[in-house]
Amino acid sequence: MDVAYATYGELDADGSNAVLVCHALTGDANAADWWATLVGPGKPVDTERFFVVCANLLGGCQGTTGPSSIDPATGEPYGLRFPLLTVRDLTTVHRALLRRLGVSRVHTAIGGSLGGMQALQWALDAPEEVERAVVICASARLSAQNIGFSAVGRAAIMRDPHFAQGAPTGLAVARMMAHITYLSEEGMRRKFDRARRVPGAPMTLASDFEVEHYLDHQGASFLERFDPYTYLYLSRTMDYFEPFAEPPRSPEPPSTRFLLISFDSDWRFGTEHSLHIQRELRARGARAEHVEIASPWGHDSFLMDVPAYHEAVREFLAR
Amino acid sequence: MDVAYATYGELDADGSNAVLVCHALTGDANAADWWATLVGPGKPVDTERFFVVCANLLGGCQGTTGPSSIDPATGEPYGLRFPLLTVRDLTTVHRALLRRLGVSRVHTAIGGSLGGMQALQWALDAPEEVERAVVICASARLSAQNIGFSAVGRAAIMRDPHFAQGAPTGLAVARMMAHITYLSEEGMRRKFDRARRVPGAPMTLASDFEVEHYLDHQGASFLERFDPYTYLYLSRTMDYFEPFAEPPRSPEPPSTRFLLISFDSDWRFGTEHSLHIQRELRARGARAEHVEIASPWGHDSFLMDVPAYHEAVREFLAR
Repeated sequence: MDVAYATYGELDADGSNAVLVCHALTGDANAADWWATLVGPGKPVDTERFFVVCANLLGGCQGTTGPSSIDPATGEPYGLRFPLLTVRDLTTVHRALLRRLGVSRVHTAIGGSLGGMQALQWALDAPEEVERAVVICASARLSAQNIGFSAVGRAAIMRDPHFAQGAPTGLAVARMMAHITYLSEEGMRRKFDRARRVPGAPMTLASDFEVEHYLDHQGASFLERFDPYTYLYLSRTMDYFEPFAEPPRSPEPPSTRFLLISFDSDWRFGTEHSLHIQRELRARGARAEHVEIASPWGHDSFLMDVPAYHEAVREFLAR
Repeated sequence: MDVAYATYGELDADGSNAVLVCHALTGDANAADWWATLVGPGKPVDTERFFVVCANLLGGCQGTTGPSSIDPATGEPYGLRFPLLTVRDLTTVHRALLRRLGVSRVHTAIGGSLGGMQALQWALDAPEEVERAVVICASARLSAQNIGFSAVGRAAIMRDPHFAQGAPTGLAVARMMAHITYLSEEGMRRKFDRARRVPGAPMTLASDFEVEHYLDHQGASFLERFDPYTYLYLSRTMDYFEPFAEPPRSPEPPSTRFLLISFDSDWRFGTEHSLHIQRELRARGARAEHVEIASPWGHDSFLMDVPAYHEAVREFLAR
């Protein structure tokens, strides 16, 4: 298989300064681009200090083998013949990549949302490889509402008759809906309220309120960069993720130190999801801190410039 | 135009016991069916005491003229040539119907969600015709998040290439998404949690979790009874509804007595929407009480058997 990855900074002589950044559902390997608030020179994940690695996920569509890759057995894209994946499958690829890069143990694994799930799964499976894990607005057990939104997104894609013909407008609808769940009601009120592009114009079924134009743009730009099959596969991976339903791999407490971060306005994977992870980790004897950060930006807060959040990450990595 | 309506009970000699029930986005004239918890013999809206009237909305698809009706000028359904409607347009039809039925003033106008918006608009326009208005989990100003969900539902319908050919799978997607917003996260957890139809079966992209099967059913059954054009039109009516942006029709305080009801788990039109209506009504000198009811069922609570809510309605109508 192919793995697309990016690195930033230099691995030090004793190989102790590697940080693996794990991307979320729609991310890619270019962590310093999509996570420019957090990753870069002098940033909390400081590329002058750390050797930062980020890889596009297995099942992805940004260079790593996924359902849109060509199946050598048929000469056609895998499509729905691609196997379903667990978070463990994703981290298995990360681990193989790091071994190739000469890294046997990371200083930190860090990620938000599905990225946090990867950091968590890896630390549970191989704590000796993960000194610290920063698990940001993640869940170890999606709720019925979470799964419901995930299912509607897939329904929008799969019921789209053009889905199989490469013109997936359903993917735009899925993205528009998901995008609302990444924001908070208060954040949307601040950003859009009821502003209209042309105040006082006649009523129309077409987009009129600024929030509609914004969602249209989110849907359209997503179609240019993303693959509907990857969306189907990786959203499903999240639905099934439930690492604490498995017995621990070892009776010993995991040696990894965990920092769990949630945001008070996140209604997708809010604080109760992080507290659930903390309870389960502590029940296994792990050291797991949790901090709830005030931010109006909902689930998307992990991508935003929120000083208290960045300070918490910086301090945890510096210990 | 045609108006489909149902009546229950008898109008008394002085015409003082009429109750107009206003239905929500996807309702119909048969109030004693879809609102059987509230409307019927001995119920809070007691059909042994009141003359209860309910009419399918203008723009609807259950007997009243709407976009799926035949345009006599063309012999074809109106479709997207049907005019966009305001809540005032809807209540104008109600008022004409009531005059035909010999009712010049109702004891009570009552409705939930879009139904509550109608009761509110009517009382603001003609308080002399509305002695009491019960406005349940309504909004007088949809938020950006509300409009966003509404826009995604319309996008699912309008971008569906089969929409114009009478096989509107996009309408099912819109309904599935909206249905999640009618429930609460806690209500969904109680009802479904992460139960799977076949525990331990292999992962699949097809529906597996019970919440998925439930949403599939909601989508499929909606296609059998509802019209995508009506969904487009009436959801848009809600987006634009903002009655307090207009100046009052009269400097006199409205004589209507208002009861505003919200549910603590409703995140679509929650308590802050009702409090906004109360503030605006009081600013105009109207008598407006508000009660927040505890219920786990989210926005859908107004259709559920919630005793404290029913008692509040019963008591207000008995005064």
